[in-house]
Amino acid sequence: MAAWARAVRGLLLDISGVLYDSGGEGGGVPIAGSAEAVQRIKASGLKLRFCTNETQATREKFVKKLQGLGFDISVAEVTAPAPAACRLLKERGLRPHLLVHDDLVPEFADIDKTNPNCVVIGDAAENFSYANLNEAFRVLIGLEKPVLISLGKGRYYKETDGLKLDVGAYMKALEYACDVQAEVVGKPAKAFFESALAEMGVRPEQAIMIGDDIVSDVGGAQQCGMRAVQVRTGKYRPSDENHPQVKPDAYVNNLAEAVDTILSQM
Amino acid sequence: MAAWARAVRGLLLDISGVLYDSGGEGGGVPIAGSAEAVQRIKASGLKLRFCTNETQATREKFVKKLQGLGFDISVAEVTAPAPAACRLLKERGLRPHLLVHDDLVPEFADIDKTNPNCVVIGDAAENFSYANLNEAFRVLIGLEKPVLISLGKGRYYKETDGLKLDVGAYMKALEYACDVQAEVVGKPAKAFFESALAEMGVRPEQAIMIGDDIVSDVGGAQQCGMRAVQVRTGKYRPSDENHPQVKPDAYVNNLAEAVDTILSQM
Repeated sequence: MAAWARAVRGLLLDISGVLYDSGGEGGGVPIAGSAEAVQRIKASGLKLRFCTNETQATREKFVKKLQGLGFDISVAEVTAPAPAACRLLKERGLRPHLLVHDDLVPEFADIDKTNPNCVVIGDAAENFSYANLNEAFRVLIGLEKPVLISLGKGRYYKETDGLKLDVGAYMKALEYACDVQAEVVGKPAKAFFESALAEMGVRPEQAIMIGDDIVSDVGGAQQCGMRAVQVRTGKYRPSDENHPQVKPDAYVNNLAEAVDTILSQM
Repeated sequence: MAAWARAVRGLLLDISGVLYDSGGEGGGVPIAGSAEAVQRIKASGLKLRFCTNETQATREKFVKKLQGLGFDISVAEVTAPAPAACRLLKERGLRPHLLVHDDLVPEFADIDKTNPNCVVIGDAAENFSYANLNEAFRVLIGLEKPVLISLGKGRYYKETDGLKLDVGAYMKALEYACDVQAEVVGKPAKAFFESALAEMGVRPEQAIMIGDDIVSDVGGAQQCGMRAVQVRTGKYRPSDENHPQVKPDAYVNNLAEAVDTILSQM
């Protein structure tokens, strides 16, 4: 991370595994130095946007939790899959059957959900029961042209009590059962990164994505023409450094180190 | 189904969706004419073997249920995935973490399950909870070389109250999350059909498989050099007749019609 960091005008930050580790009593634990790193970015004049695949809560609720953990963050700074999915549903006249976390449902408040003609799957956590998955499956298999919209396609994430399966695993289950290909809204979809960049008003070559997911964060941002840095926090695993397809532009131990290095180049 | 049916010396029958539809109070409902068809096969002198991917119960319990529904069937006539998996586990010194139906567990009674070095997944039904799937995932992802053994890879099956996701869907979820390829024991694995044929003492070209699953029954048997007939009962769907890869040697409305036609050729 040297010459190319000098051209930077905006940063995109993943949240879970970069700002904090989710799970447990208070909803999570901040990663040391991350709250101060966010403040330093804001003080530096760099544009900043949070780009998350979080779908276990509305953005309002999610941001409130992060504020409680000491982060300077507002709803208007967050790009998340549910609002993007709502735009897509409206554009195409789709009425979803929702297989999502209870706390995400309010994001779909003004979407017609009667007589569903598609399934939207998010990180439903405890709602990923056998009964609920069967119900979503039956809706899909009963459609003449099954449409499956997935809010991200992460394989797993880390909570304070261990690794948990993410929406991507359940997306694959439904894809296989119904012989369909899901449309992914959220990282690593190109359109999702592009909307985050547009909201910042920054071109891809002027932006750096910082995340813990080698495929969704790093691979997705690079596909979009951005530089991408992987932090060695959150779901990072040493085997990521031998990933057959994706190679980050740089590794850092954590967000604080990434921000230090970037700001020192400016 | 004409000339080639004359060379037949043995029949392999799938059970669920061919003999009966599973689910509901008594455990299922016989498909009209199937019990009599089994009797006619036995009276004809043809060799007969039941070849099932059933993993919701031990063979003993499963056979007892079928006898109660009026079928002439014994444990010794049934080829099923769990015993095949046990042979494989012993051969390779594998100690499984089981993600299976409670009623299947006794099949693994004499297998060492301490300190697991692989995961065995079957049709776990209600046991496919978020917590149980996470537990199996954590065992797998924690292994240096993850080994996932799947008892079949069916997409879904039909019970009296509707279609249900089968083990294949959950196998895909774990495959994706851990970036591994499952080893399938059961249909459509070639070794599984071959052991059923060996138990009958019949060569593939002398045998006919009768099943409702276009991929696991029909495709698997054909890969093994057998003829295969699809019944229009159980999970059969009209769209199966346009399957891009698999074309049955014949269609019949049900098992009774298949047996009538085959016996009339002899």
